Amino acid sequence: MNTIVKAAVVGASGYSGEELVRLLLGHPCVELAAVTSRQFAGKTLAEVFPRFAHDARARRIKFVEPDAAELASTADVVFLALPHGVAAQFAAPLAEAGCRVIDLSADFRLRDPAVYKEFYGHDHPAPGLLAKAVYGLPEVYREQIKTARLIAAPGCYPTSVLIPTIPLLRAGLVQPSGIIASSLSGVSGAGRKTELEYLFCECNESLRPYSVPRHRHLSELEQELGAAAGTKVGVLFVPHLVPVNRGILTTLYLRPAGRAANTAPHDAVEQLRACYHQAYGTEPFVQLLDGSALPDTKNVVGTNYIQIAWRVDPRTGTVIVMSAIDNLVKGAAGQAVQAMNIMLGFDEQAGLK
Amino acid sequence: MNTIVKAAVVGASGYSGEELVRLLLGHPCVELAAVTSRQFAGKTLAEVFPRFAHDARARRIKFVEPDAAELASTADVVFLALPHGVAAQFAAPLAEAGCRVIDLSADFRLRDPAVYKEFYGHDHPAPGLLAKAVYGLPEVYREQIKTARLIAAPGCYPTSVLIPTIPLLRAGLVQPSGIIASSLSGVSGAGRKTELEYLFCECNESLRPYSVPRHRHLSELEQELGAAAGTKVGVLFVPHLVPVNRGILTTLYLRPAGRAANTAPHDAVEQLRACYHQAYGTEPFVQLLDGSALPDTKNVVGTNYIQIAWRVDPRTGTVIVMSAIDNLVKGAAGQAVQAMNIMLGFDEQAGLK
Amino acid sequence: MNTIVKAAVVGASGYSGEELVRLLLGHPCVELAAVTSRQFAGKTLAEVFPRFAHDARARRIKFVEPDAAELASTADVVFLALPHGVAAQFAAPLAEAGCRVIDLSADFRLRDPAVYKEFYGHDHPAPGLLAKAVYGLPEVYREQIKTARLIAAPGCYPTSVLIPTIPLLRAGLVQPSGIIASSLSGVSGAGRKTELEYLFCECNESLRPYSVPRHRHLSELEQELGAAAGTKVGVLFVPHLVPVNRGILTTLYLRPAGRAANTAPHDAVEQLRACYHQAYGTEPFVQLLDGSALPDTKNVVGTNYIQIAWRVDPRTGTVIVMSAIDNLVKGAAGQAVQAMNIMLGFDEQAGLK
Amino acid sequence: MNTIVKAAVVGASGYSGEELVRLLLGHPCVELAAVTSRQFAGKTLAEVFPRFAHDARARRIKFVEPDAAELASTADVVFLALPHGVAAQFAAPLAEAGCRVIDLSADFRLRDPAVYKEFYGHDHPAPGLLAKAVYGLPEVYREQIKTARLIAAPGCYPTSVLIPTIPLLRAGLVQPSGIIASSLSGVSGAGRKTELEYLFCECNESLRPYSVPRHRHLSELEQELGAAAGTKVGVLFVPHLVPVNRGILTTLYLRPAGRAANTAPHDAVEQLRACYHQAYGTEPFVQLLDGSALPDTKNVVGTNYIQIAWRVDPRTGTVIVMSAIDNLVKGAAGQAVQAMNIMLGFDEQAGLK
Repeated sequence: MNTIVKAAVVGASGYSGEELVRLLLGHPCVELAAVTSRQFAGKTLAEVFPRFAHDARARRIKFVEPDAAELASTADVVFLALPHGVAAQFAAPLAEAGCRVIDLSADFRLRDPAVYKEFYGHDHPAPGLLAKAVYGLPEVYREQIKTARLIAAPGCYPTSVLIPTIPLLRAGLVQPSGIIASSLSGVSGAGRKTELEYLFCECNESLRPYSVPRHRHLSELEQELGAAAGTKVGVLFVPHLVPVNRGILTTLYLRPAGRAANTAPHDAVEQLRACYHQAYGTEPFVQLLDGSALPDTKNVVGTNYIQIAWRVDPRTGTVIVMSAIDNLVKGAAGQAVQAMNIMLGFDEQAGLK
Repeated sequence: MNTIVKAAVVGASGYSGEELVRLLLGHPCVELAAVTSRQFAGKTLAEVFPRFAHDARARRIKFVEPDAAELASTADVVFLALPHGVAAQFAAPLAEAGCRVIDLSADFRLRDPAVYKEFYGHDHPAPGLLAKAVYGLPEVYREQIKTARLIAAPGCYPTSVLIPTIPLLRAGLVQPSGIIASSLSGVSGAGRKTELEYLFCECNESLRPYSVPRHRHLSELEQELGAAAGTKVGVLFVPHLVPVNRGILTTLYLRPAGRAANTAPHDAVEQLRACYHQAYGTEPFVQLLDGSALPDTKNVVGTNYIQIAWRVDPRTGTVIVMSAIDNLVKGAAGQAVQAMNIMLGFDEQAGLK
Repeated sequence: MNTIVKAAVVGASGYSGEELVRLLLGHPCVELAAVTSRQFAGKTLAEVFPRFAHDARARRIKFVEPDAAELASTADVVFLALPHGVAAQFAAPLAEAGCRVIDLSADFRLRDPAVYKEFYGHDHPAPGLLAKAVYGLPEVYREQIKTARLIAAPGCYPTSVLIPTIPLLRAGLVQPSGIIASSLSGVSGAGRKTELEYLFCECNESLRPYSVPRHRHLSELEQELGAAAGTKVGVLFVPHLVPVNRGILTTLYLRPAGRAANTAPHDAVEQLRACYHQAYGTEPFVQLLDGSALPDTKNVVGTNYIQIAWRVDPRTGTVIVMSAIDNLVKGAAGQAVQAMNIMLGFDEQAGLK
Repeated sequence: MNTIVKAAVVGASGYSGEELVRLLLGHPCVELAAVTSRQFAGKTLAEVFPRFAHDARARRIKFVEPDAAELASTADVVFLALPHGVAAQFAAPLAEAGCRVIDLSADFRLRDPAVYKEFYGHDHPAPGLLAKAVYGLPEVYREQIKTARLIAAPGCYPTSVLIPTIPLLRAGLVQPSGIIASSLSGVSGAGRKTELEYLFCECNESLRPYSVPRHRHLSELEQELGAAAGTKVGVLFVPHLVPVNRGILTTLYLRPAGRAANTAPHDAVEQLRACYHQAYGTEPFVQLLDGSALPDTKNVVGTNYIQIAWRVDPRTGTVIVMSAIDNLVKGAAGQAVQAMNIMLGFDEQAGLK
């Protein structure tokens, strides 16, 4: 575990980029070799993010203009924290130059460029690379990540939905139709955008749904849940914006299937429990809440953990699954580092404990 | 509209009580004749609630110990902002003495004392009065409220669910089964209780579901939705606690029925719109969001309005209805005053504009 | 009080403008005749501010491009909620056309155009009007406001400082030197600016001073405190940004003078009390906290009140005065309406109760 | 640095105790041997603090009833996170039994038991131990801490005041009289007390001063500032409660002395800078903000750092010093661990990076 790789973060001035910097500065096997930002080129990390100022490296490392050739010669692994569309433009030359690339945008999450166009509104900028990309959800694609060279880090909402739902679909305990995912997200999920709707006074003391009924993350959900179910799934996803900095709380409403549908609620709960423990009993970042506790984002903020709890409603038979993550860690930067650890053969928890 | 009635608030030291006091002090047809609180007896309203200190009446009116006989001789209408079980003990003698009673607790909301016992854990304290009580939801029971003498003000969550759902059930546009209500509530919904889980640091930066799968308000939901549907309904209700002072945001997931089930999403949306406008087009406190806007609690906090928007998901066919209220106004004190206005023949909006 | 005047709000899309609209829509003697906004021209008030959507007028009134000639022909009184420099460009033609003008910017607060240039960085755009402007602090300039045609509404911070300090200076109870004003402000005080530093995630869980040591409001403080003291004063003003939507809490550290300096703390407190009651005993919007209570912004948010409390520190002799206001009401729109009421001979509390 | 000491936390169910647990679980040289809580005895750390549930030790370690003899036999170093008065009762037998004791209460901070009685309202419970206690502020008492066996961890507010003020007093750059400390604190500073005033709805959207003019921490301030000045000092301290979970922002108003009083503001600023760099240039946890940046609690929350910036007001000559800390880390648990590291010869930053 003493190998040191050189890592770069492209687009390091947003919230995911900042969190990547935080995690990489604390990673025992990583040297942060470069950070880029058009806006802040020439400034040090410490100037842009005063919370890193106590670290001598942050006072020394300066943002540079992003340049693929330069990055390829500087870094072994490059994290792209860029808007969709832009990310692919960097991924292509970097991959060609032999860099490992971990993209936090949506550019390589969807296997089908037509779905990409449907949800993101423009042609895919590098369809030739799609076949090489691995969806970076370690709990599902760990083996593929080990040999990947281009990883698409999952979206924050999909992470909170997929980890709890996939084992149930695979085990046939819930139906592939009628899946409802109702999520609450902190404001950092919107990125560090200077838009009116994300001003403090517009978010504080405000609760609101948005992007109903078609949020872009639906495309990932359908792809990955469909893969787990082995059939096309119907998913309804409704996100809500709530006044916290960080955290996603997702409540899933699922229809029981198979054994779970033909049993008493108590027994169905036990089947869910058994299924989760079989799927995730040894996962380093999944916390299964077996007792009476329910997820609470404040228990996972700042960490790479996901909390999961499950119930069966005796009145309607509905399976209720609840999860909590930090949208910037398990939902973005932390999961990206976890994937890097797997890809590079490091301890999976390195830099994430 | 110049009649002045004398009103009393029993249990005026909680958040609903405080809000009742605020509204009654501003009501053109009401004289606030008494406020009670065991804890604060002897103190003035202004001392306990400094935000009222600018009002000479608040500096003069003192909290007294609650005493039914005394209240009956002082007030024409008595608002009970007491815990369930306790409220009924005051309602009985007050009703007997000829007072109009508006109870904000759960004691008179359920017609069946067995359901009360199931959800509240003890025998109903005054089953004989249940037949006389009217469920104080003006949008549904306006006619009954006009002649009522004992009104059960609806719960905050039920208000946010029933107003948007009942017209659709009555019109047969949604199925009576598979109703899912996912709600977010501000912390004042928990009352002014000095419990660990409601401390600032326990709620701030926290998102959490609770009382899954059986919150007490489910009993009201089943009773009233069942009445609207003309059949037993299956309801799943999941509340979440989020860090705002006030506001409930409810997202309903409903299965289309009848015409709405056999049409294109766009047409189904139009059917919902027509149904809502027919039901609520002249309602003074219902805001139907016809355009692209979605509900946001910050638009209704401090008011007696409910915002409602609706969508149909083209992927799953699900009807999505979203509502926003202030849990302490339309969800409690404001709705109670609205019911009083109707009962006493005042302008329904008096004191609520 | 049945006269109806026509009012316009220029620059109505910011927080102060929104608050003016709210107050004017509820004012019994005002017809809101026009609202302007370059950004939102063509949209209705209800579209831009959904919280007004329940009001038929808000659904009808559309934002128009600001045009002085048009405004002059439409409105009797015009409120300017514009950036400094821009406001004066509208004030001049409007004043000339005979409109009453109430300017919420800094353009007419300073009598000396050199001080304006020092603090605002450019030449005063209409120095000829300065002599006609009245500083719209009713507690100090009520008589002048009665006959004014151009009113400069005070800044939010200055309001919270001047009302508590001026009577003590006039009475010689505190020294004109060594005045320290330490203020906390909610984020709406920064305006509805889409700047990075006012994003939710940048303000939430953040406490920070800013503009140290020379905030622009210092110029008003020195002018008005100097006028009260009859001599040049030395003022140190330090503002802090804290995560609330609304509210200013100011703590003043003053050096006792005269009788207050040569007496026991208890007696000095009594002298302060007497001074305040003499100055403000009949003021409609000043709340003097005589007992043990201290100001709390939550008691005044949404109102035009200012809370004031005072103490004398027995260790250092320092006079400590604390005040709380809503920065958008008493600190901006409410005070502007109060001044309008005085100027037009309405009940001073009209529309503000 | 491989020595492992056994540590216990007495009173581990409050916010400071929780933070101690967090830091000690992550400390490379510490084994968390025991945690006590009367309220939670029998429960595991993970049950009481779900945020630790991912740690196998937290799922294993159970709270026990506090018992001094038992603790003495279990632990090498005992942290007391107890109310004042109670802490001393444990400190005495533990010290006698040879344990190192780090007390986070006020019981051993004041050298004079008469001052303790004046401020805490009861006789000191163990005056015989006072002479042995070291005030655990590493930046001032590092040498004494090295040989201490009983450490009184400083209060949160005093930490934010003393570190920035002491070097200036020692250097004679500011006067020992007329010191004003105006502080803002997050709500965790009040402890995990289930009292009405700390409920979410009572703190959110609220700004308020409290304990004016005599907060208990004044006693520490006078003692330690007096020691630095070599004379009795006059301090005015005003705390304010603001709605954040964590963080103290202190603004100090100081009167310049000596060279700093007789020079241009720019030169005085340079003298302050030089003084701070000389005093703290090598301190591991002091961040001196040399440029235009000002402290912001969000930059230090979760860390043991203190940020310090300084200005000189050209109008009044006042020296303005601002500091930011996390009240639970540098203001409590982190500083206690820092002191432990020094006392036990560990790397001072162990467990705090």
